[in-house]
Amino acid sequence: MAAAIALSLRGRPASAPNPNVGCLLVREGRVVGRGWTQPGGRPHAEAMALAAAGAMARGATAYVSLEPCAHASPRGPACADSLVAAGVARVVIAAQDPDPRTDGRGIARLQAAGIETVLNLAPAAARAAMAPWWTRRTAGRPFVTLKLATSLDGCIALADGTSRWITGARARAHGHLERAKHEAILVGRGTLDADSPRLDVRLPGLEDRSPRKFLLTRGEAPDGWTAVASPEAIPDIDSLLVEGGAGAAATFLAADRVDRLLLYRAPILIGAGRAALGDIGLAGLDTAHGRWRLADSRALGSDQLDVYERTRRE
Amino acid sequence: MAAAIALSLRGRPASAPNPNVGCLLVREGRVVGRGWTQPGGRPHAEAMALAAAGAMARGATAYVSLEPCAHASPRGPACADSLVAAGVARVVIAAQDPDPRTDGRGIARLQAAGIETVLNLAPAAARAAMAPWWTRRTAGRPFVTLKLATSLDGCIALADGTSRWITGARARAHGHLERAKHEAILVGRGTLDADSPRLDVRLPGLEDRSPRKFLLTRGEAPDGWTAVASPEAIPDIDSLLVEGGAGAAATFLAADRVDRLLLYRAPILIGAGRAALGDIGLAGLDTAHGRWRLADSRALGSDQLDVYERTRRE
Repeated sequence: MAAAIALSLRGRPASAPNPNVGCLLVREGRVVGRGWTQPGGRPHAEAMALAAAGAMARGATAYVSLEPCAHASPRGPACADSLVAAGVARVVIAAQDPDPRTDGRGIARLQAAGIETVLNLAPAAARAAMAPWWTRRTAGRPFVTLKLATSLDGCIALADGTSRWITGARARAHGHLERAKHEAILVGRGTLDADSPRLDVRLPGLEDRSPRKFLLTRGEAPDGWTAVASPEAIPDIDSLLVEGGAGAAATFLAADRVDRLLLYRAPILIGAGRAALGDIGLAGLDTAHGRWRLADSRALGSDQLDVYERTRRE
Repeated sequence: MAAAIALSLRGRPASAPNPNVGCLLVREGRVVGRGWTQPGGRPHAEAMALAAAGAMARGATAYVSLEPCAHASPRGPACADSLVAAGVARVVIAAQDPDPRTDGRGIARLQAAGIETVLNLAPAAARAAMAPWWTRRTAGRPFVTLKLATSLDGCIALADGTSRWITGARARAHGHLERAKHEAILVGRGTLDADSPRLDVRLPGLEDRSPRKFLLTRGEAPDGWTAVASPEAIPDIDSLLVEGGAGAAATFLAADRVDRLLLYRAPILIGAGRAALGDIGLAGLDTAHGRWRLADSRALGSDQLDVYERTRRE
């Protein structure tokens, strides 16, 4: 199942608005088919894996990161039906689909056809792999990542605004990779006016992955940009990367609309520079605790990247 | 030799003003004696190890983290002479003693007595273990550690000054252990007036290790405190811990008198709080880079401790 969930990540973010699903077909201990949701959402992961396996799918076990869909569409058949038709013997499912068009109906259809099912094998890992889609589907809002690149003392720039460069080339390349994983990037008016950021993905082979550009403003947005009046008013996307500055970051944090922090930290001290965050409306230290959990930490050249996730009730 | 250097750390900081040395005596593959510099600087590590070994020292190999001293004093004989008298066969030395009273003379005396010597086996590790003494002996100033306890966004307090607590119990206990490893702790006037810090070691069994209390001020210091006018005017100690606040920290950094950073970081965001550092006189980002190297990183409960060391030319 870990392999199926890893495959599912290949679908992000291009599978939107469909969930990024991974599927592995195993027969007699051998992988006979692999698939993940393709750009635009079709074909689905199961369809890719079944096509790869061909006749080898008969009698195989399918590992899927999300319950196979039960609804046919003009763009393809229901995956539960396709698995039945291919003669798959067993389906192992990491998480049930919260989409009301499926939500247990895919499982029921498999079971009605006499296929053995193993349910809810790794719901937390599956949800994490599909976090943007899952958040939008269940909470009606995009999954928001906030990126901060700071000195050891938490500054994002010198007092005069200079910020090129705090982090090194490897950390900046990682930041570009994160851009490619998001449907849109948002900055505030101050960042737009000061830096005129291109916000594109400058990595070989990923140039066409440059996300949409959102500007946090109650006014107009320039050509090529979409105006967003507030964190509650993000249009039609599953994943948003907030890149700056301190005001936009604080606005999203104050609204509790940040799910993940990317903290790039350079081994330098600035002192009396520009703070990473504006006022987030914190009432006291007690309420600050218990909200963030370290999920990953790694070295990027001489910089460090720490990834924190918002702890929310399930 | 790694064991001898590890032993040497037991002498810190009580061995001051003498170097904290470690000594291991090994005969036929067995450790027959161990020693480290005792509080106040005597007995020396070699004297402890020789006393423990007794007659077993004859023919043994001595591993010492610093060249054995060549100068007798009213408080004890020269260690080079003691090793000769005990019939040690071989002496392995991590680093040569920069003290002009020894500086090669200990080695010469061992060699003149026909003892085999292995020199300079681990000079960098030995220097690191004796960093406070080594810095004072070679640079004429104490080894200075700066402690910062911040939120993820680099704040040391809310805007109103509230800072209890940013870090958790384990990080604060670690901070008390660091106090016990220093001869003195320094704060600025603002921290003294706002927090009336006790700056003692509140760990069971280490209460008597509470260091001297220094106040960074051009004026008078209260009872029990020593006034220090500037980072260049630290009196007669090898190791100093600078605990705050942002002004005192910045003064030491601006003077380039900080050798080691202890960065305790809690998994909270504050936003628009008090910055960790005041103005350190940074001219530009170029000059900020290349000065600090990550030496250690560990979790302390839900907090993180990163230790950075100043990169200086040898």
